[in-house]
Amino acid sequence: MHKRVPDVVVLRLAAYRRALREFPAGSERVSSGALAARTGYSAAQVRKDLSLFGQFGQPGVGYSVVALERELVRIFGLDRERRVALVGVGNLGSALLAYNGFREAGLRIVAAFDVDPRKVGGVIAGVPVRHVDELEGAVAGENIELAMITVPAAAAQGVVDAAVRGGIKGVLNFAPAVVRVPEGVMLRSTHLGAELERLSCLVNLSLAGRDEL
Amino acid sequence: MHKRVPDVVVLRLAAYRRALREFPAGSERVSSGALAARTGYSAAQVRKDLSLFGQFGQPGVGYSVVALERELVRIFGLDRERRVALVGVGNLGSALLAYNGFREAGLRIVAAFDVDPRKVGGVIAGVPVRHVDELEGAVAGENIELAMITVPAAAAQGVVDAAVRGGIKGVLNFAPAVVRVPEGVMLRSTHLGAELERLSCLVNLSLAGRDEL
Repeated sequence: MHKRVPDVVVLRLAAYRRALREFPAGSERVSSGALAARTGYSAAQVRKDLSLFGQFGQPGVGYSVVALERELVRIFGLDRERRVALVGVGNLGSALLAYNGFREAGLRIVAAFDVDPRKVGGVIAGVPVRHVDELEGAVAGENIELAMITVPAAAAQGVVDAAVRGGIKGVLNFAPAVVRVPEGVMLRSTHLGAELERLSCLVNLSLAGRDEL
Repeated sequence: MHKRVPDVVVLRLAAYRRALREFPAGSERVSSGALAARTGYSAAQVRKDLSLFGQFGQPGVGYSVVALERELVRIFGLDRERRVALVGVGNLGSALLAYNGFREAGLRIVAAFDVDPRKVGGVIAGVPVRHVDELEGAVAGENIELAMITVPAAAAQGVVDAAVRGGIKGVLNFAPAVVRVPEGVMLRSTHLGAELERLSCLVNLSLAGRDEL
Protein backbone atom coordinates (compact mmCIF):
# COMPACT_ATOMS: atom_id res chain seq x y z
CA MET A 1 0.00 0.00 0.00
CA HIS A 2 1.14 3.52 -0.75
CA LYS A 3 1.28 5.98 2.15
CA ARG A 4 -2.02 7.58 2.98
CA VAL A 5 -0.95 10.37 5.27
CA PRO A 6 0.00 13.17 2.89
CA ASP A 7 -3.43 13.11 1.19
CA VAL A 8 -4.99 15.23 3.88
CA VAL A 9 -2.13 17.73 3.78
CA VAL A 10 -2.46 17.95 0.00
CA LEU A 11 -6.15 18.77 0.38
CA ARG A 12 -5.33 21.57 2.82
CA LEU A 13 -2.60 22.97 0.59
CA ALA A 14 -4.96 22.81 -2.40
CA ALA A 15 -7.56 24.72 -0.38
CA TYR A 16 -4.98 27.44 0.43
CA ARG A 17 -4.13 27.74 -3.28
CA ARG A 18 -7.80 28.04 -4.22
CA ALA A 19 -8.43 30.63 -1.49
CA LEU A 20 -5.43 32.68 -2.67
CA ARG A 21 -6.70 32.65 -6.26
CA GLU A 22 -10.05 33.98 -5.06
CA PHE A 23 -8.50 36.93 -3.21
CA PRO A 24 -9.28 40.32 -4.78
CA ALA A 25 -6.78 41.18 -7.53
CA GLY A 26 -4.06 43.46 -6.22
CA SER A 27 -4.07 42.10 -2.65
CA GLU A 28 -0.51 42.32 -1.37
CA ARG A 29 -0.66 40.52 1.95
CA VAL A 30 -2.80 37.82 3.49
CA SER A 31 -2.96 36.72 7.13
CA SER A 32 -3.23 33.14 8.36
CA GLY A 33 -6.57 34.20 9.86
CA ALA A 34 -7.91 35.29 6.47
CA LEU A 35 -6.78 32.00 4.89
CA ALA A 36 -8.38 30.14 7.78
CA ALA A 37 -11.69 31.98 7.34
CA ARG A 38 -11.81 31.10 3.66
CA THR A 39 -10.84 27.45 3.99
CA GLY A 40 -12.46 26.38 7.25
CA TYR A 41 -9.19 25.27 8.84
CA SER A 42 -7.80 27.00 11.93
CA ALA A 43 -5.27 29.83 11.68
CA ALA A 44 -2.89 27.70 13.74
CA GLN A 45 -3.22 24.86 11.23
CA VAL A 46 -2.53 27.26 8.34
CA ARG A 47 0.61 28.59 10.06
CA LYS A 48 1.81 25.09 10.95
CA ASP A 49 1.34 23.74 7.41
CA LEU A 50 3.07 26.66 5.74
CA SER A 51 5.91 26.85 8.27
CA LEU A 52 6.96 23.34 7.23
CA PHE A 53 8.13 24.78 3.93
CA GLY A 54 10.09 27.73 5.28
CA GLN A 55 9.71 31.06 7.03
CA PHE A 56 7.94 33.29 4.59
CA GLY A 57 5.22 34.70 6.83
CA GLN A 58 5.82 37.47 9.37
CA PRO A 59 3.95 37.66 12.68
CA GLY A 60 1.44 40.52 12.65
CA VAL A 61 2.10 41.17 8.96
CA GLY A 62 1.08 37.95 7.24
CA TYR A 63 2.20 36.42 3.99
CA SER A 64 3.02 38.12 0.72
CA VAL A 65 0.34 36.92 -1.71
CA VAL A 66 2.81 36.72 -4.59
CA ALA A 67 5.48 34.89 -2.59
CA LEU A 68 2.96 32.47 -1.11
CA GLU A 69 1.51 31.64 -4.53
CA ARG A 70 5.02 31.03 -5.89
CA GLU A 71 5.85 28.82 -2.91
CA LEU A 72 2.67 26.77 -3.30
CA VAL A 73 3.43 26.22 -7.00
CA ARG A 74 6.83 24.90 -5.94
CA ILE A 75 5.32 22.67 -3.24
CA PHE A 76 2.92 21.23 -5.82
CA GLY A 77 5.89 20.45 -8.05
CA LEU A 78 4.45 22.65 -10.79
CA ASP A 79 7.45 24.96 -11.12
CA ARG A 80 8.79 22.73 -13.89
CA GLU A 81 7.08 20.78 -16.64
CA ARG A 82 5.80 17.32 -15.75
CA ARG A 83 5.05 14.92 -18.59
CA VAL A 84 1.75 13.07 -18.39
CA ALA A 85 0.23 10.08 -20.22
CA LEU A 86 -3.51 9.61 -20.67
CA VAL A 87 -4.84 6.08 -21.11
CA GLY A 88 -8.36 5.66 -22.51
CA VAL A 89 -9.65 8.11 -25.12
CA GLY A 90 -13.40 8.06 -24.49
CA ASN A 91 -15.58 11.06 -23.62
CA LEU A 92 -13.73 11.84 -20.40
CA GLY A 93 -10.32 11.16 -21.94
CA SER A 94 -11.15 13.49 -24.83
CA ALA A 95 -12.33 16.19 -22.41
CA LEU A 96 -9.07 15.88 -20.47
CA LEU A 97 -7.03 16.08 -23.69
CA ALA A 98 -8.90 19.24 -24.70
CA TYR A 99 -8.64 20.89 -21.27
CA ASN A 100 -6.45 23.99 -21.49
CA GLY A 101 -5.64 24.35 -17.83
CA PHE A 102 -3.03 21.58 -17.56
CA ARG A 103 -0.44 23.27 -19.70
CA GLU A 104 -0.53 26.53 -17.77
CA ALA A 105 -0.15 24.50 -14.56
CA GLY A 106 3.04 22.91 -15.89
CA LEU A 107 1.37 19.57 -16.61
CA ARG A 108 1.80 18.45 -20.21
CA ILE A 109 -0.07 15.50 -21.70
CA VAL A 110 2.49 14.17 -24.18
CA ALA A 111 0.82 10.93 -25.22
CA ALA A 112 -2.58 9.26 -25.23
CA PHE A 113 -3.20 5.52 -25.47
CA ASP A 114 -6.18 3.40 -26.50
CA VAL A 115 -6.93 0.00 -28.01
CA ASP A 116 -9.54 1.13 -30.55
CA PRO A 117 -8.04 0.90 -34.08
CA ARG A 118 -10.25 3.83 -35.13
CA LYS A 119 -8.50 6.04 -32.57
CA VAL A 120 -4.93 4.71 -32.60
CA GLY A 121 -2.80 6.70 -35.03
CA GLY A 122 -4.99 9.78 -34.76
CA VAL A 123 -4.31 13.09 -33.03
CA ILE A 124 -6.69 14.67 -30.48
CA ALA A 125 -6.13 18.23 -29.28
CA GLY A 126 -2.58 18.01 -30.58
CA VAL A 127 -1.81 14.78 -28.73
CA PRO A 128 -1.02 11.60 -30.71
CA VAL A 129 -3.06 8.51 -29.82
CA ARG A 130 -0.91 5.35 -29.64
CA HIS A 131 -1.71 1.70 -28.97
CA VAL A 132 -1.76 0.83 -25.27
CA ASP A 133 0.89 -1.85 -25.95
CA GLU A 134 3.35 1.06 -26.25
CA LEU A 135 2.50 2.47 -22.80
CA GLU A 136 5.23 0.75 -20.77
CA GLY A 137 7.97 1.68 -23.24
CA ALA A 138 6.76 5.28 -23.52
CA VAL A 139 6.76 5.78 -19.74
CA ALA A 140 10.24 4.26 -19.50
CA GLY A 141 11.79 6.04 -22.45
CA GLU A 142 10.03 9.40 -22.66
CA ASN A 143 10.34 10.75 -19.13
CA ILE A 144 6.62 10.40 -18.38
CA GLU A 145 6.01 10.83 -14.64
CA LEU A 146 2.22 10.80 -14.24
CA ALA A 147 -0.59 8.77 -15.80
CA MET A 148 -4.32 9.46 -15.94
CA ILE A 149 -6.40 6.30 -16.31
CA THR A 150 -9.78 6.72 -18.04
CA VAL A 151 -10.39 3.15 -19.24
CA PRO A 152 -13.25 0.77 -18.35
CA ALA A 153 -13.02 -0.85 -14.92
CA ALA A 154 -11.97 -4.26 -16.25
CA ALA A 155 -8.93 -2.80 -18.03
CA ALA A 156 -7.74 -0.52 -15.23
CA GLN A 157 -5.35 -2.75 -13.26
CA GLY A 158 -3.68 -3.97 -16.45
CA VAL A 159 -2.80 -0.50 -17.70
CA VAL A 160 -1.73 0.61 -14.22
CA ASP A 161 0.62 -2.41 -14.06
CA ALA A 162 2.10 -1.50 -17.45
CA ALA A 163 2.68 2.10 -16.37
CA VAL A 164 4.27 0.88 -13.12
CA ARG A 165 6.61 -1.47 -15.03
CA GLY A 166 7.65 1.55 -17.09
CA GLY A 167 8.52 3.47 -13.93
CA ILE A 168 5.53 5.81 -13.46
CA LYS A 169 5.69 7.96 -10.30
CA GLY A 170 2.02 8.78 -9.87
CA VAL A 171 -1.33 7.40 -11.08
CA LEU A 172 -4.66 9.24 -11.17
CA ASN A 173 -7.38 6.63 -11.56
CA PHE A 174 -10.80 7.67 -12.90
CA ALA A 175 -11.87 4.09 -13.64
CA PRO A 176 -14.56 2.68 -11.30
CA ALA A 177 -12.23 -0.01 -9.97
CA VAL A 178 -9.95 -0.36 -6.97
CA VAL A 179 -6.42 -0.57 -8.35
CA ARG A 180 -3.19 -1.39 -6.54
CA VAL A 181 0.24 0.13 -6.95
CA PRO A 182 3.50 -0.88 -5.27
CA GLU A 183 4.93 1.17 -2.43
CA GLY A 184 6.65 4.30 -3.69
CA VAL A 185 4.15 4.91 -6.50
CA MET A 186 1.56 7.53 -5.59
CA LEU A 187 -2.08 6.81 -6.33
CA ARG A 188 -5.19 8.97 -6.26
CA SER A 189 -8.56 7.55 -7.21
CA THR A 190 -11.46 9.74 -8.14
CA HIS A 191 -14.60 9.64 -10.22
CA LEU A 192 -16.73 12.13 -12.09
CA GLY A 193 -19.40 12.01 -9.43
CA ALA A 194 -17.19 12.96 -6.49
CA GLU A 195 -17.71 16.72 -6.64
CA LEU A 196 -21.45 16.44 -7.25
CA GLU A 197 -21.77 14.16 -4.22
CA ARG A 198 -19.92 16.74 -2.12
CA LEU A 199 -22.25 19.46 -3.38
CA SER A 200 -25.23 17.30 -2.45
CA CYS A 201 -23.79 16.92 1.05
CA LEU A 202 -23.27 20.68 1.34
CA VAL A 203 -26.88 21.37 0.29
CA ASN A 204 -28.21 18.67 2.59
CA LEU A 205 -26.30 19.85 5.68
CA SER A 206 -27.14 23.46 5.02
CA LEU A 207 -30.87 22.75 4.58
CA ALA A 208 -30.75 20.84 7.85
CA GLY A 209 -29.23 23.89 9.54
CA ARG A 210 -25.99 22.03 10.28
CA ASP A 211 -23.68 24.87 9.33
CA GLU A 212 -22.44 25.03 12.93
CA LEU A 213 -20.22 22.07 12.08
CA MET B 1 -21.15 35.01 -0.12
CA HIS B 2 -22.21 31.48 0.67
CA LYS B 3 -20.93 29.91 3.86
CA ARG B 4 -17.47 28.36 3.62
CA VAL B 5 -17.31 26.39 6.82
CA PRO B 6 -19.00 23.11 5.91
CA ASP B 7 -16.65 22.53 2.95
CA VAL B 8 -13.95 21.13 5.17
CA VAL B 9 -16.41 18.87 7.00
CA VAL B 10 -17.73 17.61 3.67
CA LEU B 11 -14.19 16.70 2.61
CA ARG B 12 -13.69 14.73 5.83
CA LEU B 13 -17.03 12.95 5.47
CA ALA B 14 -16.20 12.14 1.83
CA ALA B 15 -12.87 10.70 2.97
CA TYR B 16 -14.65 8.47 5.51
CA ARG B 17 -16.99 7.22 2.77
CA ARG B 18 -14.08 6.45 0.46
CA ALA B 19 -12.16 4.67 3.23
CA LEU B 20 -15.22 2.56 4.07
CA ARG B 21 -15.63 1.52 0.44
CA GLU B 22 -12.02 0.38 0.38
CA PHE B 23 -12.41 -1.85 3.44
CA PRO B 24 -12.17 -5.57 2.69
CA ALA B 25 -15.54 -7.01 1.63
CA GLY B 26 -17.29 -8.67 4.55
CA SER B 27 -15.83 -6.41 7.25
CA GLU B 28 -18.46 -6.03 9.93
CA ARG B 29 -17.01 -3.41 12.23
CA VAL B 30 -14.59 -0.54 11.90
CA SER B 31 -12.93 1.49 14.65
CA SER B 32 -12.39 5.25 14.62
CA GLY B 33 -8.67 4.46 14.74
CA ALA B 34 -8.85 2.41 11.54
CA LEU B 35 -10.78 5.19 9.80
CA ALA B 36 -8.22 7.68 11.06
CA ALA B 37 -5.31 5.59 9.76
CA ARG B 38 -6.85 5.43 6.30
CA THR B 39 -7.83 9.09 6.02
CA GLY B 40 -5.03 10.89 7.84
CA TYR B 41 -7.36 12.58 10.33
CA SER B 42 -7.14 11.85 14.05
CA ALA B 43 -9.33 9.20 15.70
CA ALA B 44 -10.73 11.97 17.94
CA GLN B 45 -11.72 13.99 14.84
CA VAL B 46 -13.44 10.94 13.32
CA ARG B 47 -15.42 10.31 16.52
CA LYS B 48 -16.34 13.99 16.85
CA ASP B 49 -17.56 14.29 13.25
CA LEU B 50 -19.63 11.13 13.38
CA SER B 51 -21.07 11.80 16.83
CA LEU B 52 -22.71 14.95 15.44
CA PHE B 53 -25.10 12.74 13.51
CA GLY B 54 -26.06 10.40 16.30
CA GLN B 55 -24.74 7.66 18.54
CA PHE B 56 -24.07 4.72 16.29
CA GLY B 57 -20.56 3.82 17.40
CA GLN B 58 -19.81 1.87 20.58
CA PRO B 59 -16.69 2.50 22.69
CA GLY B 60 -14.26 -0.39 22.33
CA VAL B 61 -16.40 -2.00 19.62
CA GLY B 62 -16.44 0.59 16.85
CA TYR B 63 -18.97 1.24 14.12
CA SER B 64 -20.99 -1.23 12.12
CA VAL B 65 -19.72 -0.91 8.53
CA VAL B 66 -23.20 -1.34 7.08
CA ALA B 67 -24.85 1.13 9.46
CA LEU B 68 -22.12 3.70 8.98
CA GLU B 69 -22.34 3.47 5.20
CA ARG B 70 -26.11 3.89 5.36
CA GLU B 71 -25.74 6.88 7.70
CA LEU B 72 -23.19 8.56 5.42
CA VAL B 73 -25.50 8.12 2.43
CA ARG B 74 -28.19 9.88 4.45
CA ILE B 75 -25.82 12.67 5.52
CA PHE B 76 -24.86 13.21 1.87
CA GLY B 77 -28.55 13.54 1.04
CA LEU B 78 -28.29 10.59 -1.34
CA ASP B 79 -30.98 8.47 0.30
CA ARG B 80 -33.53 9.97 -2.09
CA GLU B 81 -33.32 10.98 -5.73
CA ARG B 82 -32.00 14.48 -6.45
CA ARG B 83 -32.72 15.98 -9.85
CA VAL B 84 -29.79 17.61 -11.62
CA ALA B 85 -29.41 19.88 -14.66
CA LEU B 86 -26.28 19.99 -16.80
CA VAL B 87 -25.50 23.18 -18.70
CA GLY B 88 -22.98 23.01 -21.56
CA VAL B 89 -22.82 19.87 -23.69
CA GLY B 90 -19.16 19.85 -24.82
CA ASN B 91 -16.65 17.04 -24.22
CA LEU B 92 -16.86 17.28 -20.44
CA GLY B 93 -20.62 17.75 -20.45
CA SER B 94 -20.99 14.68 -22.66
CA ALA B 95 -18.71 12.65 -20.39
CA LEU B 96 -20.81 13.66 -17.38
CA LEU B 97 -24.04 12.73 -19.20
CA ALA B 98 -22.60 9.30 -20.03
CA TYR B 99 -21.24 8.66 -16.52
CA ASN B 100 -23.09 5.75 -14.95
CA GLY B 101 -22.20 6.46 -11.34
CA PHE B 102 -24.59 9.35 -10.72
CA ARG B 103 -27.74 7.31 -10.97
CA GLU B 104 -26.62 4.68 -8.48
CA ALA B 105 -25.68 7.52 -6.11
CA GLY B 106 -29.22 8.89 -6.28
CA LEU B 107 -28.26 11.81 -8.51
CA ARG B 108 -30.29 11.94 -11.73
CA ILE B 109 -29.45 14.26 -14.60
CA VAL B 110 -32.90 15.03 -15.98
CA ALA B 111 -32.08 17.77 -18.47
CA ALA B 112 -29.13 19.17 -20.40
CA PHE B 113 -28.90 22.67 -21.87
CA ASP B 114 -26.81 24.24 -24.64
CA VAL B 115 -27.00 27.06 -27.17
CA ASP B 116 -25.69 25.12 -30.17
CA PRO B 117 -28.60 24.48 -32.63
CA ARG B 118 -26.87 21.26 -33.70
CA LYS B 119 -27.20 19.93 -30.15
CA VAL B 120 -30.51 21.44 -28.98
CA GLY B 121 -33.34 18.99 -29.60
CA GLY B 122 -31.07 15.96 -29.50
CA VAL B 123 -30.71 13.29 -26.84
CA ILE B 124 -27.38 12.30 -25.26
CA ALA B 125 -27.12 9.22 -23.04
CA GLY B 126 -30.89 9.32 -22.68
CA VAL B 127 -31.00 12.97 -21.60
CA PRO B 128 -32.77 15.55 -23.82
CA VAL B 129 -30.74 18.64 -24.75
CA ARG B 130 -32.77 21.85 -24.52
CA HIS B 131 -32.01 25.50 -25.24
CA VAL B 132 -30.41 27.32 -22.33
CA ASP B 133 -33.24 29.87 -22.48
CA GLU B 134 -35.41 27.16 -20.90
CA LEU B 135 -33.06 26.67 -17.92
CA GLU B 136 -34.73 29.04 -15.45
CA GLY B 137 -38.21 27.65 -16.14
CA ALA B 138 -37.02 24.04 -15.94
CA VAL B 139 -35.35 24.58 -12.56
CA ALA B 140 -38.45 26.32 -11.22
CA GLY B 141 -41.02 23.89 -12.63
CA GLU B 142 -39.32 20.50 -12.67
CA ASN B 143 -37.98 20.17 -9.14
CA ILE B 144 -34.32 20.48 -10.20
CA GLU B 145 -32.11 21.04 -7.13
CA LEU B 146 -28.54 20.93 -8.45
CA ALA B 147 -26.84 22.29 -11.57
CA MET B 148 -23.50 21.35 -13.14
CA ILE B 149 -21.99 24.17 -15.20
CA THR B 150 -19.69 23.08 -18.05
CA VAL B 151 -19.90 26.16 -20.30
CA PRO B 152 -17.10 28.50 -21.44
CA ALA B 153 -15.91 31.01 -18.84
CA ALA B 154 -17.65 34.00 -20.43
CA ALA B 155 -21.06 32.30 -20.23
CA ALA B 156 -20.75 30.92 -16.69
CA GLN B 157 -22.17 33.75 -14.56
CA GLY B 158 -25.15 34.17 -16.90
CA VAL B 159 -26.25 30.55 -16.65
CA VAL B 160 -25.64 30.50 -12.90
CA ASP B 161 -27.87 33.58 -12.54
CA ALA B 162 -30.62 31.90 -14.57
CA ALA B 163 -30.43 28.75 -12.43
CA VAL B 164 -30.53 30.90 -9.27
CA ARG B 165 -33.61 32.80 -10.52
CA GLY B 166 -35.25 29.41 -11.02
CA GLY B 167 -34.51 28.46 -7.41
CA ILE B 168 -31.51 26.15 -7.68
CA LYS B 169 -30.12 24.94 -4.33
CA GLY B 170 -26.58 24.04 -5.34
CA VAL B 171 -24.20 24.82 -8.21
CA LEU B 172 -21.14 22.82 -9.25
CA ASN B 173 -19.02 25.06 -11.47
CA PHE B 174 -16.48 23.47 -13.83
CA ALA B 175 -16.07 26.67 -15.89
CA PRO B 176 -12.73 28.46 -15.44
CA ALA B 177 -14.40 31.55 -14.02
CA VAL B 178 -15.16 32.86 -10.53
CA VAL B 179 -18.95 32.90 -10.23
CA ARG B 180 -21.11 34.38 -7.49
CA VAL B 181 -24.28 33.01 -5.93
CA PRO B 182 -26.52 34.65 -3.33
CA GLU B 183 -26.44 33.52 0.28
CA GLY B 184 -28.34 30.29 0.78
CA VAL B 185 -27.28 28.79 -2.54
CA MET B 186 -24.39 26.35 -2.19
CA LEU B 187 -21.49 26.61 -4.62
CA ARG B 188 -18.54 24.36 -5.33
CA SER B 189 -16.01 25.27 -7.99
CA THR B 190 -13.67 22.73 -9.48
CA HIS B 191 -11.77 22.08 -12.67
CA LEU B 192 -10.54 19.04 -14.54
CA GLY B 193 -6.97 19.71 -13.47
CA ALA B 194 -7.62 19.72 -9.73
CA GLU B 195 -6.99 16.03 -9.08
CA LEU B 196 -3.90 15.90 -11.31
CA GLU B 197 -2.43 18.88 -9.46
CA ARG B 198 -3.03 17.09 -6.16
CA LEU B 199 -1.32 13.99 -7.52
CA SER B 200 1.64 16.11 -8.60
CA CYS B 201 1.84 17.52 -5.06
CA LEU B 202 1.74 14.01 -3.59
CA VAL B 203 4.56 12.85 -5.87
CA ASN B 204 6.59 15.97 -5.19
CA LEU B 205 6.29 15.79 -1.39
CA SER B 206 6.99 12.07 -1.36
CA LEU B 207 10.10 12.43 -3.55
CA ALA B 208 11.29 15.14 -1.18
CA GLY B 209 10.82 12.73 1.74
CA ARG B 210 8.13 14.94 3.29
CA ASP B 211 5.81 12.11 4.27
CA GLU B 212 6.33 13.02 7.92
CA LEU B 213 3.75 15.79 7.35
